Amino acid sequence: MDAPRFETVPIHLADRNYCIAIGSGLLDSPHSYDDIADAASALIVTNATIAPLYAHRLQHAVSSKFREIHTLVLPDGEQFKTWPTLNLIFDALLQNGCDRKTVLFALGGGVVGDMTGFAAASYMRGVPFVQIPTSLLAQVDSSVGGKTGINHPLGKNMIGAFYQPLKVLCDLELLKTLPQRELSAGLAEVIKYGPIADLALLDWIEGHIGALLAGDPAALAHVVKRSCEIKAWVVGQDEKESGLRAILNFGHTFGHAIEAGLGYGHWLHGEAVACGMVMAAQLSLRLGLVDAELVRRLTRLLERAGLPVRGPRLAEGDNAGRYLELMRMDKKSQGGELRFVLIDGAARAAVRAAPQALVREVIDACCR
Amino acid sequence: MDAPRFETVPIHLADRNYCIAIGSGLLDSPHSYDDIADAASALIVTNATIAPLYAHRLQHAVSSKFREIHTLVLPDGEQFKTWPTLNLIFDALLQNGCDRKTVLFALGGGVVGDMTGFAAASYMRGVPFVQIPTSLLAQVDSSVGGKTGINHPLGKNMIGAFYQPLKVLCDLELLKTLPQRELSAGLAEVIKYGPIADLALLDWIEGHIGALLAGDPAALAHVVKRSCEIKAWVVGQDEKESGLRAILNFGHTFGHAIEAGLGYGHWLHGEAVACGMVMAAQLSLRLGLVDAELVRRLTRLLERAGLPVRGPRLAEGDNAGRYLELMRMDKKSQGGELRFVLIDGAARAAVRAAPQALVREVIDACCR
Repeated sequence: MDAPRFETVPIHLADRNYCIAIGSGLLDSPHSYDDIADAASALIVTNATIAPLYAHRLQHAVSSKFREIHTLVLPDGEQFKTWPTLNLIFDALLQNGCDRKTVLFALGGGVVGDMTGFAAASYMRGVPFVQIPTSLLAQVDSSVGGKTGINHPLGKNMIGAFYQPLKVLCDLELLKTLPQRELSAGLAEVIKYGPIADLALLDWIEGHIGALLAGDPAALAHVVKRSCEIKAWVVGQDEKESGLRAILNFGHTFGHAIEAGLGYGHWLHGEAVACGMVMAAQLSLRLGLVDAELVRRLTRLLERAGLPVRGPRLAEGDNAGRYLELMRMDKKSQGGELRFVLIDGAARAAVRAAPQALVREVIDACCR
Repeated sequence: MDAPRFETVPIHLADRNYCIAIGSGLLDSPHSYDDIADAASALIVTNATIAPLYAHRLQHAVSSKFREIHTLVLPDGEQFKTWPTLNLIFDALLQNGCDRKTVLFALGGGVVGDMTGFAAASYMRGVPFVQIPTSLLAQVDSSVGGKTGINHPLGKNMIGAFYQPLKVLCDLELLKTLPQRELSAGLAEVIKYGPIADLALLDWIEGHIGALLAGDPAALAHVVKRSCEIKAWVVGQDEKESGLRAILNFGHTFGHAIEAGLGYGHWLHGEAVACGMVMAAQLSLRLGLVDAELVRRLTRLLERAGLPVRGPRLAEGDNAGRYLELMRMDKKSQGGELRFVLIDGAARAAVRAAPQALVREVIDACCR
């Protein structure tokens, strides 16, 4: 079989360099795995939705590289991004006698990627892993930057590691089976890169939103590549999130509160982030950082992408108070002070504190 | 208060340099913590044995650096080095609103150090931590090298991270409350450095075993410093254990089988390692790598240190088979092949495979 055509985004980090390959037909081609060292065993970690579609195809494509290939099927959904599910990966690794050279394959969306990555980081203090993201959100977001982890009942992504994969395969064909709602949720993270880093990308998406929503591979290839490039540029400057990297969390402070407040799994992550971006943009507006036109454009584009732009009520009585309470759990908060990623209208973003009264005003204005 | 006198062992690693301070009276001196940045909060993690002895003293010594200081008391023992106990640390961090600048203090032996280190590595993907080892074993072993983690029902230390502390304080006064059995167990790891790296240290211990067993601070300071220096030299060359670092596991392949076979917590780690070193030395002897005199010296010294030199029976019938089964879980095994750290009599060690028949012979000869 000839190797399929693909583009690559190189990722350069302090302790590891790797490549993201972006193209169609990558999953099935044994050439996609040429640069991975042979080992006694591999473990494919996937979920109940993805397994029947793609697990046997991956197993076939890598069959010559490993003596034993095990497959572990996890339940599907953010509500399973927990220790008990993570422990199923450790159980499988130990029950199958997997060693330090065993390669883990994360075949699925962000939840599978985050959990498999954390398992790879922690099993015997680190084994190699390959990411094959099957959702648009995972292709543009989780495939760069090495953030892995699980949720804790008191907070999202509170337990994890920075850990880089050997490589990432973004096969655009896999997006054909993605439900429309999840495609939209992925577009939220794509649109995010506009206001924080690249207004030309925002223009481009406005002109191609129809093709993107229709799953056009060329349009998707463009936004996946550009999103990975931007994220790689940011992460390359600040791998451990001591400063700049936090801008990638635009919309996430409000978004995490929505996810936690509703219970994980009710809204998709991208939906919560879409709504959170509108709220963060409104907060930027009220602080005089950005003009109303960009906030309007962003809100309109998210709506066209099929995403929610008004927040849910999280409490019967003091709704804003509940949001604030949940946001104090955010990893960016310091000494109890809330901090947000705010935009300036010139494709830049920064983490800043904001007066609580103003945050309340934004929540009241943006929620149903 | 004047700063107490202490010696330091500098640790140089790829991503972080830090110092081990070795002296008497370090715990109580605020100067010991001068180089740690102030933060909103700190969490002291300790255990039920250590807390009543030292937790309030640490809290007092660091009281000016943090607005809030929380203390978490874990149950004491290797059998609690598990996920549910680790999760108590995450619960405490989240319930107290601890953020990315929160400093964790590991005040206890190896179990507290390993779990607190792994919690620090994983909480919000990494927060700072300080180690104050209260056992000899932790001072000479866990304080260098950044190995953190927990046990899994199917294997010891199977889940963890390489993560370095901000600093390590080895206060020799803390060893005064250490039970004799644990002092002996710590000496096992000290004696280990002889055959693998420094025969002069072996001579020195033979000449000072009485002072060491009596808890003489000067004698203890000497072996703590020398052990940390040797370990730092090894770890500095191979932080992630791709090669040389594995020699520090001399005696640990057999030792881990003993611990797992008896159930964690029955034998102390150092006791299992002592016995494991005798078995690994016997295996080295049978492979013609070392002469009988060194094996005899090592065995005699371990006995004088109050340590077991004969292995327990782990199965009624095929005892050696049970050892082999447990050892296949070892992190050094590759593709099912057993590998051991073997010594050569010239203060060098290396990881090598060994014929199974010979390993059986050693187990049969060395067990009760």
